[in-house]
Amino acid sequence: MQRVIPLVCFTTKRQFSCTFPRFAGKKAALIVGAGDSTGSAISRAFANEGFHICAVRRNKEKLSPLISEISGKGQGITGLGVDCRKEDQVQEMVKQIETDIGPIEVAVHNIGANVHFGITQTTARVYYKVWEMACFSGFLVGKEVATRMRERGAGTIIFTGATASVRGGVGFSAFSGAKFGLRSLSQSMARELGPEGIHVAHVVVDGGIDTPFVFENLPGAKELAKIGGLLNPDEIAQNYIHLFKQPKSAWTQEMDLRPYCEKW
Amino acid sequence: MQRVIPLVCFTTKRQFSCTFPRFAGKKAALIVGAGDSTGSAISRAFANEGFHICAVRRNKEKLSPLISEISGKGQGITGLGVDCRKEDQVQEMVKQIETDIGPIEVAVHNIGANVHFGITQTTARVYYKVWEMACFSGFLVGKEVATRMRERGAGTIIFTGATASVRGGVGFSAFSGAKFGLRSLSQSMARELGPEGIHVAHVVVDGGIDTPFVFENLPGAKELAKIGGLLNPDEIAQNYIHLFKQPKSAWTQEMDLRPYCEKW
Amino acid sequence: MQRVIPLVCFTTKRQFSCTFPRFAGKKAALIVGAGDSTGSAISRAFANEGFHICAVRRNKEKLSPLISEISGKGQGITGLGVDCRKEDQVQEMVKQIETDIGPIEVAVHNIGANVHFGITQTTARVYYKVWEMACFSGFLVGKEVATRMRERGAGTIIFTGATASVRGGVGFSAFSGAKFGLRSLSQSMARELGPEGIHVAHVVVDGGIDTPFVFENLPGAKELAKIGGLLNPDEIAQNYIHLFKQPKSAWTQEMDLRPYCEKW
Amino acid sequence: MQRVIPLVCFTTKRQFSCTFPRFAGKKAALIVGAGDSTGSAISRAFANEGFHICAVRRNKEKLSPLISEISGKGQGITGLGVDCRKEDQVQEMVKQIETDIGPIEVAVHNIGANVHFGITQTTARVYYKVWEMACFSGFLVGKEVATRMRERGAGTIIFTGATASVRGGVGFSAFSGAKFGLRSLSQSMARELGPEGIHVAHVVVDGGIDTPFVFENLPGAKELAKIGGLLNPDEIAQNYIHLFKQPKSAWTQEMDLRPYCEKW
Repeated sequence: MQRVIPLVCFTTKRQFSCTFPRFAGKKAALIVGAGDSTGSAISRAFANEGFHICAVRRNKEKLSPLISEISGKGQGITGLGVDCRKEDQVQEMVKQIETDIGPIEVAVHNIGANVHFGITQTTARVYYKVWEMACFSGFLVGKEVATRMRERGAGTIIFTGATASVRGGVGFSAFSGAKFGLRSLSQSMARELGPEGIHVAHVVVDGGIDTPFVFENLPGAKELAKIGGLLNPDEIAQNYIHLFKQPKSAWTQEMDLRPYCEKW
Repeated sequence: MQRVIPLVCFTTKRQFSCTFPRFAGKKAALIVGAGDSTGSAISRAFANEGFHICAVRRNKEKLSPLISEISGKGQGITGLGVDCRKEDQVQEMVKQIETDIGPIEVAVHNIGANVHFGITQTTARVYYKVWEMACFSGFLVGKEVATRMRERGAGTIIFTGATASVRGGVGFSAFSGAKFGLRSLSQSMARELGPEGIHVAHVVVDGGIDTPFVFENLPGAKELAKIGGLLNPDEIAQNYIHLFKQPKSAWTQEMDLRPYCEKW
Repeated sequence: MQRVIPLVCFTTKRQFSCTFPRFAGKKAALIVGAGDSTGSAISRAFANEGFHICAVRRNKEKLSPLISEISGKGQGITGLGVDCRKEDQVQEMVKQIETDIGPIEVAVHNIGANVHFGITQTTARVYYKVWEMACFSGFLVGKEVATRMRERGAGTIIFTGATASVRGGVGFSAFSGAKFGLRSLSQSMARELGPEGIHVAHVVVDGGIDTPFVFENLPGAKELAKIGGLLNPDEIAQNYIHLFKQPKSAWTQEMDLRPYCEKW
Repeated sequence: MQRVIPLVCFTTKRQFSCTFPRFAGKKAALIVGAGDSTGSAISRAFANEGFHICAVRRNKEKLSPLISEISGKGQGITGLGVDCRKEDQVQEMVKQIETDIGPIEVAVHNIGANVHFGITQTTARVYYKVWEMACFSGFLVGKEVATRMRERGAGTIIFTGATASVRGGVGFSAFSGAKFGLRSLSQSMARELGPEGIHVAHVVVDGGIDTPFVFENLPGAKELAKIGGLLNPDEIAQNYIHLFKQPKSAWTQEMDLRPYCEKW
């Protein structure tokens, strides 16, 4: 029943393919940064809402488990290997989704780029790369989907923020700089696009997420996990669904999320 | 089937009564400021979640429509005529609910006191009264329910804020002063009580609400209503339900709500 | 040369007296909360700028050292024993100063009321008293001097804030609630009065001040003092002078002050 | 008496020259973005404090009037044509100043890049260029001077912000994104470098500045100018001097500046 639609695309000439029957009547949810934890959870959550998921990572191969899981439930998903720091790739991606799959009704930008260096140890390259990944890609994706959404006067765009989105800190010049920029983008877009019927929101995730990465890097993560002190990706995702479902007379622009025992 | 439980109560010696069969196994939701619009909508929403509603206004008579509506659906509600600026009344109220009805699992403080006077036209009496209503009562209620909730290591306390909670403005010295204070309270309580399992949240309602009051006082309200530019009370209430349902590993402390076309 | 002007005043019928020759041609600086450290330092600083100081504490006797010091330098100072939580006293105070001394060109509200109790240990009385002292008195004084200043289209009003002005915290429900309220007041007044030529500013003092109180109550204060980690009152005061001197085309509404080694 | 020191420098191989006798015993103040209004005013102000000014613009020729003015008063100034978006140029610049002129005791980053485009009219190129100019250059300069200052345990770094530093807005996605990033940088640096004796501050300039640019671009600028409603560059500069002079036990991290009649 599954039909793979091979598509040669983007500047890289890499192929991407629709792993499921052509989207018919369903809307597309674009999840940029469909990583193994939060991004995957958001993808699952929107799939459960009937969306065809367009899951994006730079390395398309890494999307295999998510594609298997979602398509295994009979839900629609297309994996896209796109570098969202490149304008032409982003433009091509949005164009192809809108042409071949369906209108993007929801777009989520969920690219983290958490690094930690003191100010004089932060290389220009790191500072630039982190901004490109965590902020510039948000602009490129946000702008491109906004162009389509404003033609329809509807749509939801959600940016994932962090503690560093609202507070600079020791060792966070690169990450926080990018995240402040992304938060600014969400505000500028919300103020401009809200009156046109497009909901732009920003979620400040303030705490460790229950992922292998955190277990390797956050001291005390194991103990936190035992007492429910780590954010569960699926629980994070429920808030994105909530934002999406808000009627347009009562929209949230920003909300925070943190474990009950988090110091803040 | 309905059993009215007459209760002589509070310092005022006024009676209050349980208009429904004694709460058995259900949890109580205390809605302080159960006015005709947002407070009533929040009451309805928590009643739909299976809570026994304890609806509070200074003037108990004004609760009649809400009591009729909710009890008419076979849901539990108790109307309480309590002045929440008075510590003894608040203490007695919480004690009676916990004794006669059930544990307060949710408490919502939703008292507005919006006035508009230039700084030199604001009387000391107005400044004081507005604070007493919109902030001090929040402290009294919050503290009293927190005392019970911390014994159980669980509970949800939600404060209703406004634009004036985050920004002082011309003519808003009294209202904004009180609302800043309430926001501060929500932060202090959240930081202290979160680790004990009590979720304290603050909702910034930034826009006109679709109520008779707004139609009388906000120029252009009719036009706004036509285009969905006023906040619908039931839609506001859905966010309180969402906050209540958040698992404790992913709690929101603050979220804003505004119509899509609101300038902010 | 010193002439003591006995004045029976205020509702309390207590006397206050002008310890110096009648203010002639000089402007008055009203320092509410002229305590032993910051308030005294601010008084000294404005005296050095040529102001006649109107130093206010509830207990007038405690003003003696400050009066001696300033008058000993041949500068003008009047000590006022006024309870600034009382509207009639504030009104009478401002009236007498404007009548007998001179126009109030600068008013500083510098009343602290720092207490520390967990939420359920904070009595209603404490919560109320702290607000009355740290916020309500600010409204009463601010309003009263604004009434006079707006007639002249000029004046400076400065409120002293604290860390707790911008952040609620464990144990700070009372203090932070009051300080949030005061910050809101400064914003509402600034937005309304700025266009009339009155400069309203808010100083967030974020750190321990080099005072006997801090040495008794802040663990590690001695060590901090040795490395310059406590705010010096006179250094704080220089910022009030700077705010006062800002020309009206470049006014600051809010600035923070903290020791170089403070965590924030 | 004037001695021109020709220096071949930077990757561009362009010459720069010391227009004044070699700095002897004086400290250097590096003013990046020494434009015709605010940057020049800041340069003048620090020259008056006895600093040797290192004034930087991409186009060195445009520095001529400032160099003439300051050197004409017998004060020290060196004009530097440097593109501060280029790491090697920034490194070379700081190295040469420290070697040939003197230790950089003050560094000001004052590069504006105000553009105004709706989100879907903002090209990727504009978004990127604005960030590179207004934020990335701040990182490069801030990092490089911090490296030197931390060896000495002293120094002052001031970043010029704008309304857009704290608030996204319609048409401001590029400019606000960059300015948010710069504000984040100031916070991260302040928190890391403060304890080492380096003062990092951020000035939010919120209003039109009295410049030819504003007269051409801001409707109503003429009327504003007449009533003192435009920020005067020299008055802005006095606040930078104030920040520089703050003793390290009472440092400001952020302050705003706006005309008395500005709406905010």
